[in-house]
Amino acid sequence: MSDTNMIEVIKSKKVKELGPVCDEIRQKIIEAVSKNGGHLSSNLGMVEPTIALHRVFNSPNDKFVFDVGHQCYAHKIITGRGDALSLLRQFDGVSGFPNRSESEHDVLNEGHSGTSISAALGIAEANKLLGKDDYTIAIIGDGSLTNGMVYEALNNCAGKDLKLIILVNDNEMSISKNVGGLHNYFSKVRVSKRYFIFKRRLKKGFRWIPLLGKPITRLLAGIKNFFGRMLVKNNVFEDLGLEYLGPVNGNNLKKVVGVLEEAKTRSCPTVVHIRTKKGYGYEPAEKEPGKYHGVGRFDIENGINEQPSESFSYVAGKKLVEMAESDEKICAITAAMCDGTGLTPFAEKLPNRLYDVGIAEEHAITFATGLSVSGMKPVVVLYSTFAQRTFDQALHDIAIQGLPMTLLLDRSGIVGGDGITHQGIFDYPMFSSIPGVNIYSPQTYSELEECIEKAVNSEKFDIIRYPKGKETKYKSSLEMIYDEKKTLAYSSNIEKATRVIVTYGRITSLANEVAEGLGDCAVIKLIKIFPLDIEKIATLLNGKELAYVLEESTKTGGVGEKLQPALNKAQKVYIHAIDGFVEHGELNDLYNFCGFTRDNIINNIKKLT
Amino acid sequence: MSDTNMIEVIKSKKVKELGPVCDEIRQKIIEAVSKNGGHLSSNLGMVEPTIALHRVFNSPNDKFVFDVGHQCYAHKIITGRGDALSLLRQFDGVSGFPNRSESEHDVLNEGHSGTSISAALGIAEANKLLGKDDYTIAIIGDGSLTNGMVYEALNNCAGKDLKLIILVNDNEMSISKNVGGLHNYFSKVRVSKRYFIFKRRLKKGFRWIPLLGKPITRLLAGIKNFFGRMLVKNNVFEDLGLEYLGPVNGNNLKKVVGVLEEAKTRSCPTVVHIRTKKGYGYEPAEKEPGKYHGVGRFDIENGINEQPSESFSYVAGKKLVEMAESDEKICAITAAMCDGTGLTPFAEKLPNRLYDVGIAEEHAITFATGLSVSGMKPVVVLYSTFAQRTFDQALHDIAIQGLPMTLLLDRSGIVGGDGITHQGIFDYPMFSSIPGVNIYSPQTYSELEECIEKAVNSEKFDIIRYPKGKETKYKSSLEMIYDEKKTLAYSSNIEKATRVIVTYGRITSLANEVAEGLGDCAVIKLIKIFPLDIEKIATLLNGKELAYVLEESTKTGGVGEKLQPALNKAQKVYIHAIDGFVEHGELNDLYNFCGFTRDNIINNIKKLT
Repeated sequence: MSDTNMIEVIKSKKVKELGPVCDEIRQKIIEAVSKNGGHLSSNLGMVEPTIALHRVFNSPNDKFVFDVGHQCYAHKIITGRGDALSLLRQFDGVSGFPNRSESEHDVLNEGHSGTSISAALGIAEANKLLGKDDYTIAIIGDGSLTNGMVYEALNNCAGKDLKLIILVNDNEMSISKNVGGLHNYFSKVRVSKRYFIFKRRLKKGFRWIPLLGKPITRLLAGIKNFFGRMLVKNNVFEDLGLEYLGPVNGNNLKKVVGVLEEAKTRSCPTVVHIRTKKGYGYEPAEKEPGKYHGVGRFDIENGINEQPSESFSYVAGKKLVEMAESDEKICAITAAMCDGTGLTPFAEKLPNRLYDVGIAEEHAITFATGLSVSGMKPVVVLYSTFAQRTFDQALHDIAIQGLPMTLLLDRSGIVGGDGITHQGIFDYPMFSSIPGVNIYSPQTYSELEECIEKAVNSEKFDIIRYPKGKETKYKSSLEMIYDEKKTLAYSSNIEKATRVIVTYGRITSLANEVAEGLGDCAVIKLIKIFPLDIEKIATLLNGKELAYVLEESTKTGGVGEKLQPALNKAQKVYIHAIDGFVEHGELNDLYNFCGFTRDNIINNIKKLT
Repeated sequence: MSDTNMIEVIKSKKVKELGPVCDEIRQKIIEAVSKNGGHLSSNLGMVEPTIALHRVFNSPNDKFVFDVGHQCYAHKIITGRGDALSLLRQFDGVSGFPNRSESEHDVLNEGHSGTSISAALGIAEANKLLGKDDYTIAIIGDGSLTNGMVYEALNNCAGKDLKLIILVNDNEMSISKNVGGLHNYFSKVRVSKRYFIFKRRLKKGFRWIPLLGKPITRLLAGIKNFFGRMLVKNNVFEDLGLEYLGPVNGNNLKKVVGVLEEAKTRSCPTVVHIRTKKGYGYEPAEKEPGKYHGVGRFDIENGINEQPSESFSYVAGKKLVEMAESDEKICAITAAMCDGTGLTPFAEKLPNRLYDVGIAEEHAITFATGLSVSGMKPVVVLYSTFAQRTFDQALHDIAIQGLPMTLLLDRSGIVGGDGITHQGIFDYPMFSSIPGVNIYSPQTYSELEECIEKAVNSEKFDIIRYPKGKETKYKSSLEMIYDEKKTLAYSSNIEKATRVIVTYGRITSLANEVAEGLGDCAVIKLIKIFPLDIEKIATLLNGKELAYVLEESTKTGGVGEKLQPALNKAQKVYIHAIDGFVEHGELNDLYNFCGFTRDNIINNIKKLT
């Protein structure tokens, strides 16, 4: 089917005739993800619900607001981007998240959790003020329900007269299977007059149902538990004063269409609860949906060829386990990213000191404050982009108290395929404004380990930022001389060199390449990037022809700005950092986009001197 | 009674003999607040619960974590700071919030909402890991329950085996009075076997009870409603898997002691729900608790002598009403600070375009995103210190979309008596790192009005920061010359002057005083503080002996750092901004602490040149 008429087909055919459309979309998703990497399991589960949404509602007049947004592939295919999906997550290709620049059907660029209901409520209120009859639909997974913003938003939905639908996509995986059987039961009984009697029985029933059996389930309990209760006690949404419909099988197109049509008749905020099967329609993903949540390229026939590989995350996790095994005060905190941050071994070996708090970065920091004030050594590990949510907690709950804490910022710098909403390039200006903080930016695994050791055992608030993926393989011939405290290093040719690149983190290896290419160029590598040793750096730069700052971070408020008093010791100063937002693509493509290539920097330096 | 033995008395006497202690504490609170300003109503309501806490638990081994913290006065008196309270909120006097540097009984410095349960959970987990038997008690008002962090924390409490008590202080004011009668009823019935039957009857009953009558009540509905439901449906806490006790009359010492002793027997997170009367024991405050929530100095006999007065907040609110009356697209959003931000007239005149979202700053921004993407002109008004919670939403939900929005940062700069947790000095580094943002810092009411007009009608993300309180009265004799776009102004003596002060906002009048005192000194006043007109400023500073930057904001990441390329055109550069945290005190005292006095700056400049 051509991309362009898919909405028409979905709207005009009988529901039972839409099976082939489901298959086609599913096939396109599998092909695109196997070729480019991306989110698979949740997208396969969302095929029927997305078709139902487009059948029952009229996008773009009716607005679909996807929470997090990684489950939007079917939506992209239906709205004319099926062919374009072959370049999914590639530079200049289709984004893996809703993106306003791609289509009028993408309402907002999304990538962070818990924002959809807030934004949808705003749209619905605007519609009301503007006298529009359009619907607004927030599409949110159960994982996002652990995020506080969702409650702030739900709390504001109560009692409103708005055409707002909140489609809760409850993946079967997310709830203890023991509870599953009760859902159908409950779904039937809740409309009957015997509702309260059943409710009492269910409540009693819970006492003997083994909700949380195995250790791994217990680990998930903090997060998932809640949603289980939400359903069975039927339910927090109603407590919050919202209409509630469901649950229905989200992979049964007829049922989803039915429940959405029912929701359409309401004129107040209505929660529609569907259950979908992660990975539905692709056997390997159905069997191991977690493994196929976010994936790299893979072979469709054989599935993912799993090979555990070293990375900054892996090294950080390994180091923390090592340290925690001999220091009982060390605790690790993750916000629903145990695997992504390399903390799975910690969770397995030291489960009583690993706290997965759900998608709740704010709580993560303040919870760690409580641990810290009691003498523990908390290490919070977040993705840089999600740590943007924690500025107030870092300032108000840790820094003002003068308490120690270690915050590891995984995926700092350019992250690649996840794109504009996920780039880890804004942490530095924010965190460096916090009085008393130390910020480190190791280049290598071994520097990362050293920084972690230093940070965890310090009495300060220390932040370590490191990139997604692996150490750079480039082996420089420059001899680097470290200062005593290992806060910085400089190449041994610095006295002779007339031009100096000042840099930090992963991109240092590119600086080394450039310096070698130019010959008459030295490199200063900063490991501690806040506070800066201005005096030392000024001495090193004194009288040089050019100080060229190279930063894989945003320019405004960056290291370069803070270095100015030192940079001014050179005759010319140039700051090469990231200016504005960066979309998705392979790391190489995005480096190229930012001018972070050997040839470009060599040319820049030649032009400047 | 001397301060020192109050805990002993509270622990040793019979409960019924403690009436005089209650009276004494109450009297001290009234005296301290009438003399120094502060929070009155909530503190008067909290006298008995605080005595009960100290009777039942053993601080500092058992830890009291106050949410927001403004209700800690009785706690301060009981823990030996009753006499010191005569200098409440004064420089070098007792803080109006818990403060670790004052007492081992103050667990954390607190001032922001929604953090207590997160921190208390961390402390309780640490106690468990360390094998300690101590209790941790989070003390939280119902207002804070609108904050998302509370849910993130509660969600993490479920099913834990911890000595954690969450004392919910429900001020009678916060719930529609119509619902009040049901509470007692419900409190009795919930323990009976006929619980579910009553619940059903109550539910039916609700249909005819006029929950939300008057318009003003409706305005509060979004926030307060929820808590009403929480109680009557009995209740969200239990849905979240926590033990629940109450509600009991919090101003009945015997009852609070009883319920806390009961809670002490539980070994899992337990919510204790008490109802207190705001302003209890001081008639004017009982009658008008809202008016006596946060107050300036007043006469105990006559109460507050209300005189509505002009301020930056008032001017902002007035301007927004004016504009919104002729532009139906303008909406105002506040996070539970309608009065404080001057939006009450907006709420009265244009209630359908005023959104009070509760203490939910994150939601406020993303909700405004929804309004903006639908073509409205949202104006979000937050205190600078609370806007620290919105960086991710400002970046991810507004800036990435390229959508217009106006964010007004009230109480930017030094705020005075509220102290360290409330200073509005950290907004600039954070927000100025957002691509595409414009930031303004008006000095006067009229500049504020101009900035608002410009911002609301622009297609950009604009932020305007302005201080607490009034325009400075100092009338400078310097003639200020504005550039075409009014992004900056400079004094007409700039060509002749050899020294130049570069400044912005309220503190400009101090710069003017200094310049007049020195004679040979000019002033550049920045109105647009991001992006900066580096070229223009460089031209003005070229060849000057000294560029002296004066900022009522944090130094790191501040305007001075960003101005460096322009500042370097002068022979010497000095940045005088705020370095580190600033405690509480009168504005003058804190200006003095920061060196922001005419004489000090004149001396600095003389020394430098």
